Formats: sequence, C-alpha cells, structure tokens
Amino acid sequence: MPPLKLSKISTKAPAKLDKEHTKADTVKILNELDELQNLLFAEHKHSLLVVLQGMDASGKDGVIRNVFGKLNPQGVQVHSFKAPTEEEKSHDFLWRIHRVAPGKGNICLFNRSHYEDVLIQRVHQWIDKATVKKRFAAINDFERLLTQHNDTHILKFYLHISPEEQQERLSERMQDPRKMWKYNANDFEEAKRWDDYRKAYEDAFEHCNDVPWTIVPADQNWYKEYVIAKAVRDTLVKLKMQYPGLKKP
Amino acid sequence: MPPLKLSKISTKAPAKLDKEHTKADTVKILNELDELQNLLFAEHKHSLLVVLQGMDASGKDGVIRNVFGKLNPQGVQVHSFKAPTEEEKSHDFLWRIHRVAPGKGNICLFNRSHYEDVLIQRVHQWIDKATVKKRFAAINDFERLLTQHNDTHILKFYLHISPEEQQERLSERMQDPRKMWKYNANDFEEAKRWDDYRKAYEDAFEHCNDVPWTIVPADQNWYKEYVIAKAVRDTLVKLKMQYPGLKKP
Repeated sequence: MPPLKLSKISTKAPAKLDKEHTKADTVKILNELDELQNLLFAEHKHSLLVVLQGMDASGKDGVIRNVFGKLNPQGVQVHSFKAPTEEEKSHDFLWRIHRVAPGKGNICLFNRSHYEDVLIQRVHQWIDKATVKKRFAAINDFERLLTQHNDTHILKFYLHISPEEQQERLSERMQDPRKMWKYNANDFEEAKRWDDYRKAYEDAFEHCNDVPWTIVPADQNWYKEYVIAKAVRDTLVKLKMQYPGLKKP
Repeated sequence: MPPLKLSKISTKAPAKLDKEHTKADTVKILNELDELQNLLFAEHKHSLLVVLQGMDASGKDGVIRNVFGKLNPQGVQVHSFKAPTEEEKSHDFLWRIHRVAPGKGNICLFNRSHYEDVLIQRVHQWIDKATVKKRFAAINDFERLLTQHNDTHILKFYLHISPEEQQERLSERMQDPRKMWKYNANDFEEAKRWDDYRKAYEDAFEHCNDVPWTIVPADQNWYKEYVIAKAVRDTLVKLKMQYPGLKKP
C-alpha cells in the first residue's frame, strides 16, 4: 500500500457526528456482538484475533473493558505483551505470540503484540535495519499462517491520539487517585520519542498490510469504541456463521 | 532441488564399511557430543532441532535412545507427535510444533513432526492437493523463522528402510516379549500404503528443502546411528562455539 502519513489523519471524531446518538449505536452493536460471539463459539470454525496498538495512554485498556468486557469470558482471552522474559527471549520473537493465538471459536485480544518487536525495539535501536526488514517478512508469514491455515480473522487497530491528548492523559495519571497506579515516569521519556515511534508505525503499516490496519481516531473514547465495536461486528457478520445441527449418532 | 527417488537410494551401509570400526567411531563421536552440548548450553546462542521421520519401525526410537540418550537431559527435550488433540486441532497445524521448538542452548528431538501433516494426512486423503501445497509453503516459512530469527539449526533425517526390513521388524514385535508393547495391527495396514507414503515423502523432500534433508540408510542400526551422530557433531562443530567469559559487574 502507498505510505500512510499519520500526521494527515485526524485523531478526532468527525465534527458532525452526534456523540449521544453514536453511543446509543455502540450499545446496540455490543448487544449484537453478544449473539455473534455465541455463534462463533458454537460453530467452532473461525477465530478472531484483535491486535491493539498505540502510543502510551492511547486507550487500549479502555477498549478491552468497554468493547469486549461484556462478552462471555469463556470465549475471550486477553494477552498483554510486556518486555519478554528470559524464557521468551530464548526463542524467536513470534514464539510467545503463536502459543497464545486463538483456537477455533475464540476471540483473542492482544494488548500490544508482535508489532512491538518492530516498534520499541527499533526506536531504541536494539535491532538494526536488516533485522527490522526480516521481521516484517516473518510477521507477514505468521499472519498468513493464522489466516490461511486456521480461519483466524485478524483485526489490527492503531489507536491514533494526538501528542497533546497523550500529555494530558499522562498528567492525569499523576493527579487522579484512581489512575495513579498507571503512572510511570518512563512514559514521559518515551513520549519524547514520538516522531521516531510515528515513523516506525508508518513503516509497519506499509510493510505489514497483507492483513490491513485500521487507524482509529482515538482522542475521544466514545468514538474509538464505536469504530472498533462496529469493525468487529461487521467482520463477524460477514462470516455467515450458523449453529451446527444435531450430530448424527 | 531435483526430484529425489528413494528407490534409487540404498537402505544399507556401504558394503566395504567395517561394522566394528564404525561402532568405535560412533562411541568417539558421542563423547565429543557430550562436550559440544555443554558448550551449546553454556553459550546460550544457538539451538538444535532434530527432526526424525521414517516409516513405522524405521528406528526413530532407537536413534533417540542410542545417539542422544547419553547427553545431559537438562538441555535435551524429546517431543513425539501423535494424532492431534482436540485443542491442537483448534489451531493451525504448526501451533503445537512452534510451542515446543527449542530455546537457545537446547537440543530438541522431534519423533515425527510437522511433516506428518503432509504425509499421513495426505496418504489418507484427509486433505486436498491445494492444502498440501499451502502447507509446504507454511513449513518453509516456519523453518525460516526458527533458522533466521533464533539461530536454530535444523537437521532433518529420513530413516530409509526397505519394505522387507520393515516387515521383518513389525513381525518381530509380535514375537519378542520385549517388543510386543510396540505391536500395532494397524501398522500392517499402513505398510500396504508404502508406495503412497514414498511418493508423499519424495514430494516433501522436493518442496521443503530450504533446510535440507538427510536420507539415512537405516536397515542396519549401527550405520544409521553413526550417520546421525556424525551429522549432529559436524553441525555443532561448525558453530565455533565458545564458553562465555565472566560477566562484568
């Protein structure tokens, strides 16, 4: 795909969109999702992998709670990828990812993902350019494996916030007692690398787009949640799933 | 690589090779392997994946016991791949393989492997031709991931026995009380599909040879063990491993 410039894409909801009306739509969609998930689980044919990426404080946790929080937890797994453990580092970078990929009937949420291996690692120059390139290819191979060999439908969301919105949210974490647990002084250091992260993301969008990315304007939570809920609903509807009949004896 | 015809390759040791002399060589090699494994573990940089494939009774278990049985078990893992479980079937065919791939410093033995997914499944026509082709490509991607992204050295051995030798060994299992536990009436049924298996193997050798296969004449155990021990030793020697120095404080 042609190079995509994040700076050209708004981080805000369309100006004319009515907030209350959209929130009501989201509620309707979430009700539909409940039934669709049940069908996904019962049919046991497809699976769904939702990749959530974005700068610090872009609202990944909120998506998990507010969009997927009402589904049947038996069919939903959430995996947060932090700095790899010693055991994980002793394997290829996709090893820890593959082992928690969704089985048929399941929805898997990745809070950060294998993309960190071409983002934070690149921005800090822990890996060289040749390695980044090799990893892009391996990521495409891996996503094709899940897609083509197990009917896994992958949705990749980039939560797109502005640097100003990020600064505001990070500062809020220092002041709101209910958010202080999230405060990490290091986030402010990382925020200084905004331009490097932006470039690394744009490069990942360009080279790993066989499974396409969705750029989600994320300055307003109500709009972000609507966009993601709708994308998930639309994906599941397209599968034309059916409840299996009685098994013949 | 050009198509390889198993029928053109001998299943026997070279006629002039002295059995006792070769067995003494194998003992020497196994002693070297002991030190090499120690180095592999200490250096924590590479790993080794040994794939053992072959018809029933081709001697895979014997290789594991006699070639790898003397190594330090802390750095050796053996995985036997049987019919997939329900959980495994709910994932892509490489999922169960990837999660037990060797971490740095380790030697992993696969008693059967991901190749069964283009062998038994193909011979029994549980999958169609298009799926076989797609799987060949996925296997190449996967082996490249391990090789290029984690310094995993993959050795793929086909234990090459003649149909006559197989019949003899299967019959022995019915008579020798120490081998009866291995007897499975179904093996005789599978043996009738010898030609189909041979063709499926030849096709896998042709299409999945980025990491090359070694065809091991395997009618005589002493020769088979010598060939494999030597290949493993030579691979490890080429790594030019070194004990790490003292870590700086």
